[in-house]
Amino acid sequence: MLPVDLPDTVRDALLAPLVDHACHGVRRDELSRAQFELLINEGASPAPPGTTHFDTPIGAGLRRWCAPVLDLEPHAPPAVYVSRRAELGSAEVNRRLLRAAGVVVFLVDTGVENVDLLSAAEMGRGGAAAAEEIVRAEQIEQDVAETAQAAVDYMDGLGEELTVRAVRAVGLKTVAAYRLGLDFDPSRPSRGSVIAAANRRLSDPKRRLDEAVLLRHLLWTAVDVARERGLPIQVHTGFGECEADPHRADPARLAGFVRALQPMGVPVVLLNGYPFQRQAAHLAHAFPHVYLDAGPAFAQTGAGSARLMEESLELAPFHKLLFGSGGRGVAESCLLGAVHFRRALGKALKARLDEGEWSAADAARIAHMIGSGNARRIYRL
Amino acid sequence: MLPVDLPDTVRDALLAPLVDHACHGVRRDELSRAQFELLINEGASPAPPGTTHFDTPIGAGLRRWCAPVLDLEPHAPPAVYVSRRAELGSAEVNRRLLRAAGVVVFLVDTGVENVDLLSAAEMGRGGAAAAEEIVRAEQIEQDVAETAQAAVDYMDGLGEELTVRAVRAVGLKTVAAYRLGLDFDPSRPSRGSVIAAANRRLSDPKRRLDEAVLLRHLLWTAVDVARERGLPIQVHTGFGECEADPHRADPARLAGFVRALQPMGVPVVLLNGYPFQRQAAHLAHAFPHVYLDAGPAFAQTGAGSARLMEESLELAPFHKLLFGSGGRGVAESCLLGAVHFRRALGKALKARLDEGEWSAADAARIAHMIGSGNARRIYRL
Amino acid sequence: MLPVDLPDTVRDALLAPLVDHACHGVRRDELSRAQFELLINEGASPAPPGTTHFDTPIGAGLRRWCAPVLDLEPHAPPAVYVSRRAELGSAEVNRRLLRAAGVVVFLVDTGVENVDLLSAAEMGRGGAAAAEEIVRAEQIEQDVAETAQAAVDYMDGLGEELTVRAVRAVGLKTVAAYRLGLDFDPSRPSRGSVIAAANRRLSDPKRRLDEAVLLRHLLWTAVDVARERGLPIQVHTGFGECEADPHRADPARLAGFVRALQPMGVPVVLLNGYPFQRQAAHLAHAFPHVYLDAGPAFAQTGAGSARLMEESLELAPFHKLLFGSGGRGVAESCLLGAVHFRRALGKALKARLDEGEWSAADAARIAHMIGSGNARRIYRL
Repeated sequence: MLPVDLPDTVRDALLAPLVDHACHGVRRDELSRAQFELLINEGASPAPPGTTHFDTPIGAGLRRWCAPVLDLEPHAPPAVYVSRRAELGSAEVNRRLLRAAGVVVFLVDTGVENVDLLSAAEMGRGGAAAAEEIVRAEQIEQDVAETAQAAVDYMDGLGEELTVRAVRAVGLKTVAAYRLGLDFDPSRPSRGSVIAAANRRLSDPKRRLDEAVLLRHLLWTAVDVARERGLPIQVHTGFGECEADPHRADPARLAGFVRALQPMGVPVVLLNGYPFQRQAAHLAHAFPHVYLDAGPAFAQTGAGSARLMEESLELAPFHKLLFGSGGRGVAESCLLGAVHFRRALGKALKARLDEGEWSAADAARIAHMIGSGNARRIYRL
Repeated sequence: MLPVDLPDTVRDALLAPLVDHACHGVRRDELSRAQFELLINEGASPAPPGTTHFDTPIGAGLRRWCAPVLDLEPHAPPAVYVSRRAELGSAEVNRRLLRAAGVVVFLVDTGVENVDLLSAAEMGRGGAAAAEEIVRAEQIEQDVAETAQAAVDYMDGLGEELTVRAVRAVGLKTVAAYRLGLDFDPSRPSRGSVIAAANRRLSDPKRRLDEAVLLRHLLWTAVDVARERGLPIQVHTGFGECEADPHRADPARLAGFVRALQPMGVPVVLLNGYPFQRQAAHLAHAFPHVYLDAGPAFAQTGAGSARLMEESLELAPFHKLLFGSGGRGVAESCLLGAVHFRRALGKALKARLDEGEWSAADAARIAHMIGSGNARRIYRL
Repeated sequence: MLPVDLPDTVRDALLAPLVDHACHGVRRDELSRAQFELLINEGASPAPPGTTHFDTPIGAGLRRWCAPVLDLEPHAPPAVYVSRRAELGSAEVNRRLLRAAGVVVFLVDTGVENVDLLSAAEMGRGGAAAAEEIVRAEQIEQDVAETAQAAVDYMDGLGEELTVRAVRAVGLKTVAAYRLGLDFDPSRPSRGSVIAAANRRLSDPKRRLDEAVLLRHLLWTAVDVARERGLPIQVHTGFGECEADPHRADPARLAGFVRALQPMGVPVVLLNGYPFQRQAAHLAHAFPHVYLDAGPAFAQTGAGSARLMEESLELAPFHKLLFGSGGRGVAESCLLGAVHFRRALGKALKARLDEGEWSAADAARIAHMIGSGNARRIYRL
């Protein structure tokens, strides 16, 4: 899996157990081929007639790297793969794939409510690892909006519920990039404007929140809780859901909010970032409280992911990079995240060693930092 | 031309005839060195004193790859190249270079009116290939504006003329990126606003259209015709004419329009995209009706084009990528597009095969899809 | 330092003395480890507890490439490096590092006023090279604002002071990207609006100028002086100070201003550009009067800088690229800029030669142009 001719210490550091600081639950139920194809694509549509979502970088990646874990030959055809998956059953498939990832702690975003998804604890059991929770602020808001009777209840409820949930979590998370874009007004909204907006919100609480004043209020409430509890806040950046405007997910547009948070000492962890990993790395370089994913979108970009790791490494301090698989929906994405991360970092280190740019001792030390050490420090694991 | 040690099936797939889904006519007249230099640069100015447009990636590329087709040594000096071109005459030069491209069908954007440019049929004859037409909406609009007497005539005329021209075309095209930027209001403009704008337009019909309401109306009229006839719409994205604002040509800014078209089932083909190929690939990944150029700007970026192909391959489904040379002005650009495409895809495949990421059978199959199969399906050739 | 197996002519061209068209003075005083760490990072904060700014690309680069110049082993630990630096003393350290850069002329931006920084003449003496001055417009403005009594004095003073300072300079420079963003209104502001803004300005002249009308007036005044004296204007683009909004530093947003300057014939040199080097290269490709750094941010991006050079080379004419170290604060940055430039260009040339894309004669000629020839022509050295 790794480049040949790496020094043993570097190879060992790359193969050491990882902390996966950014994953989601995977499906526990048996999946048809149509369901499986939808889960390996970020869009919400089947592939056009005559084509398949297997003919994608992630499709090629899972046929290569996941097939052998299910006792198939590498590059097994899609139909064979899906059939073998059904034969083994989802529980066994999840168990095998999550264990093969070599992860020691999963940090699981539990913000997508679906009884068919494994919980954080189940992810841990499946992967023979520890598991911790990341609380998604927008999901808390949805719960509060659906139960609050008045604007004041809504505002109090947000703070209370976030505080309660944060007690057993290791971080908070926001997906404001999907709802608002990252170029929102970074200031804390006035109480008056929040009450007015909350009253409107409570007249239609089932709707997904996409209102700027309330999203900003939610973010600032999450920041208050994070500061109180010493937790980092994860911010999704870069491409993702197809309802969002992709250019507004550029983390560079978050610079004003990052500056506003700097005096508060709350760590900001930029998730994903693809294809803006250089922008994310710049913020981590310029601001002491900003961190980023070490090469985003590994599972989705497959064989192309080494270049993304390299782009992150252009400017990011080595103590700011964290491994995250971005896994979601199917356990294949968790394993592919880990495989491509190790391969990409292995290539980057080998290039630096071959050219004499780094020492082997530094390479091993930095591999350990990015793979687990930085996450242990930042999330206080 | 291709990397050594490729499996025969992969090599054969790379060398198979291509469908060039994005080219323009090339000049039929004899060209002076000054004229030739202007045609190999996208700006509209001569190189500064003491310099030459041959000292560019495309200049280096044509000295390397086109010179031998004109019986010169690779890397022939610019003066020798231009002199040999004159000696052979444009007809023979065009014939040799277009045939050397190994193209089986040219899809020719006929939207630049100039008697010195080869027609679609002439491009086909020159290249010993079939040729089909792509109708540029803005050129139809110019014709209609110059003949319509009243706003109603103008609106009716657009629909009628686009319908008539679409009968014998395989696709429509817009260059709104040059006139408006891609961040235009994606909604269909009201009839009242179009009539008001059309009245203004008809008072100065020779002017190039750059008015938002009429451009949006033109786009939606083209969409209606495309849906009626089952044709795709090509959208120029990325860098191009120097009058445009380059950051507004980011295809990510087209996401709203893409979402608006999704229910209509009209395929959207993002042309060029450089340097936003990752953004184009994301849209093709997230939306079932979006396609893109497989690595943009091959002729212009020359030896650097392999990286662009790689960036397209990070996220784009393999059934969404299409070869297009972007050729225009001189036949060198058509040949260079094909040469660099084959070289870039060859390198990408070799890297995946060497690292065991893909099987040879998949590599050959995907090379065929990108080189011609996808275009045959989407344009119904 | 260079790739093996390069033809001698190419190797000689890469090792020939460079013109460094973009550097700043470095500190003359003795630096503590804390001071040194702050100077190798573009942020304004120490690294978080338990981490160090040495764990960055520039930190790894200086341990590799600068340590031997100070008689240490490559990859010397940070503590050893800082200690050896103190032992030798800043004067000797600066002398060794600047000479090791192999620079024949330094063009020094003198716009940061600090008695601890070497002057242009001192940079030259330290590096056994010639030195010329680049005048930063914003620094002139600050001086004028602090002494002018009335708006008319302010306006007259700007023109006079820029003219006086331009007499002994080889170029002017603006950092409007930090104060305003590059998407400013490119038109020349009216005299009335400037007088009104100047009156406001003079009520608080110590403040850093960040007002759009006055910055635009300053730019146009600098353009007038540059045209009069035949000087180029350098424009900082891309990432930099953490107060700026990074996405607004995209040089593509400067296209309107570039178009406005085209008839005046004033060369515009885009500095840095990271990570927008493709955008900078596009402007240099499309406009005859635009130039750019040949691969930006070499010192900061260290082992990753070869990719940036490659991205610049995708579209930029070879007669438009200039070597600049971007050195500032510590002499390490000047040396690292030169080392990584030579390594990156060497790799790019070797790849083109190995693949037969370029001839060795062209490679040597172009290396010479980018390393010094283009700068000599544009700055009339």
